[in-house]
Amino acid sequence: MKKNKRIGAIVDELVNNPNRLYDSKHFCDKYDIAKSSLSEDIKMINEILEERGSGHIESTPGVGGGIRYIPGISKESVVQLQEELIEKLEDPSRILGGGFIYTSDIMFDGYYVRNMARFIAQKFNKLGADYVVTVETKGIPLAAQVASLLDIPMVVIRREAKYSEGSTVSINYFSGSYDRIQKMSIAKRAVEPGTKAVIVDDFMRGGGSIKGIEEILAEFNIETIGSAVAMASREPAKKKISDYISILYLDSIDEEGKTIKISPNEDL
Amino acid sequence: MKKNKRIGAIVDELVNNPNRLYDSKHFCDKYDIAKSSLSEDIKMINEILEERGSGHIESTPGVGGGIRYIPGISKESVVQLQEELIEKLEDPSRILGGGFIYTSDIMFDGYYVRNMARFIAQKFNKLGADYVVTVETKGIPLAAQVASLLDIPMVVIRREAKYSEGSTVSINYFSGSYDRIQKMSIAKRAVEPGTKAVIVDDFMRGGGSIKGIEEILAEFNIETIGSAVAMASREPAKKKISDYISILYLDSIDEEGKTIKISPNEDL
Repeated sequence: MKKNKRIGAIVDELVNNPNRLYDSKHFCDKYDIAKSSLSEDIKMINEILEERGSGHIESTPGVGGGIRYIPGISKESVVQLQEELIEKLEDPSRILGGGFIYTSDIMFDGYYVRNMARFIAQKFNKLGADYVVTVETKGIPLAAQVASLLDIPMVVIRREAKYSEGSTVSINYFSGSYDRIQKMSIAKRAVEPGTKAVIVDDFMRGGGSIKGIEEILAEFNIETIGSAVAMASREPAKKKISDYISILYLDSIDEEGKTIKISPNEDL
Repeated sequence: MKKNKRIGAIVDELVNNPNRLYDSKHFCDKYDIAKSSLSEDIKMINEILEERGSGHIESTPGVGGGIRYIPGISKESVVQLQEELIEKLEDPSRILGGGFIYTSDIMFDGYYVRNMARFIAQKFNKLGADYVVTVETKGIPLAAQVASLLDIPMVVIRREAKYSEGSTVSINYFSGSYDRIQKMSIAKRAVEPGTKAVIVDDFMRGGGSIKGIEEILAEFNIETIGSAVAMASREPAKKKISDYISILYLDSIDEEGKTIKISPNEDL
């Protein structure tokens, strides 16, 4: 196979399998090339990805080493994504009353989810998490995509214990958004005790849900080592959790004046 | 930019934006090349993707035309995927009783979801659907990935109307799996009346859920033009819907003998 074609083929394989460790033998055998030629190819592919801002290749030599695609996104692309999201989300027809705005279309849109997930995965890539955890429903596509990019399992916490989950552990927590006690439940077999998790959700107001997730994970001796949301509300300024990443901030919703104000996270 | 690098860069851009129509000007301007060079590049990229079984490039000439990556998966890859899934799913520790088996880890695994979604998207690509519709919760990552590959929105039907969805339409339907009446509800603003949808879910027993989704969509004059599930039960043989695609068939669960029998869909 010509070098041109080989480069394209390896790019296709790597970007479709993010964070998967490939033995260099895999590509040498597949394309019948020497290790030195593969090294040149990988060097070029790394340049391509870095120039495009879509990540890089990590090559680790020796036994247990190999080639791995680490997905990423450039700052310029994140800024553009934020601008696009803000323009969509500030549409006053999204105001639902009670401090809610309609966001399902955004959270279920493949293009936005793929790009938001790249930003979050890039932030979490070096943490060494074992799971991406979310609570149903609206954050699931984003959490699933982050987990897919990090090549680790996603765990979905349910609002109600389901028979199809086997035995579960449940807790009650206070949700500021709904101003009431809510329940969450996790399948025992979904997680291994003594591991590490990152939490991904669509929206955070006071941080009650994420705090609840942290608590239910703590029941399994699972440490939360990072949290990310698509959008966090500025109010209340004092959250129940201190350390989180948000792509956007919801500044205010003026129901009478029919305006929504959203600003980007500038600490990229 | 050298041709080698350009090929890799265009592959990265196209495979990350499936089914998105690119004007050839986009690439000609970006890489400062003539249309004839781009045509050669695209021809080569099409060969790469077809040889790898990961789809093809559709080029349509003239006004309103352009270049589009149509994702796919080879028959051999589907067969391999089915074998891997069956080996995982036939593990007797998955038996939960009551005819249920534990599948959440599979439905929330990025690698399996990406590949199952490629198979389903390939089947649905030419139908011209406007939405991929699912009902919460376990089928959401698969439906989201199919929607992402087809570049159309996903719509999630909720078990309970949520305030954050705005006004909703609800129906009751009979679920054979749970042997009771269940409710489903859809946000009015999530769908445009008079459109077409495909349905994607994790599991089908009698087809009651999918029939329910068809009915709720019919309330909006939305036609269901295809349905797909990761796994369908052989029993009952008579389903409430007639036309569906399944990746796997659940033949039997023997709770006493502690065995699960699953077979692949061979009509690929």
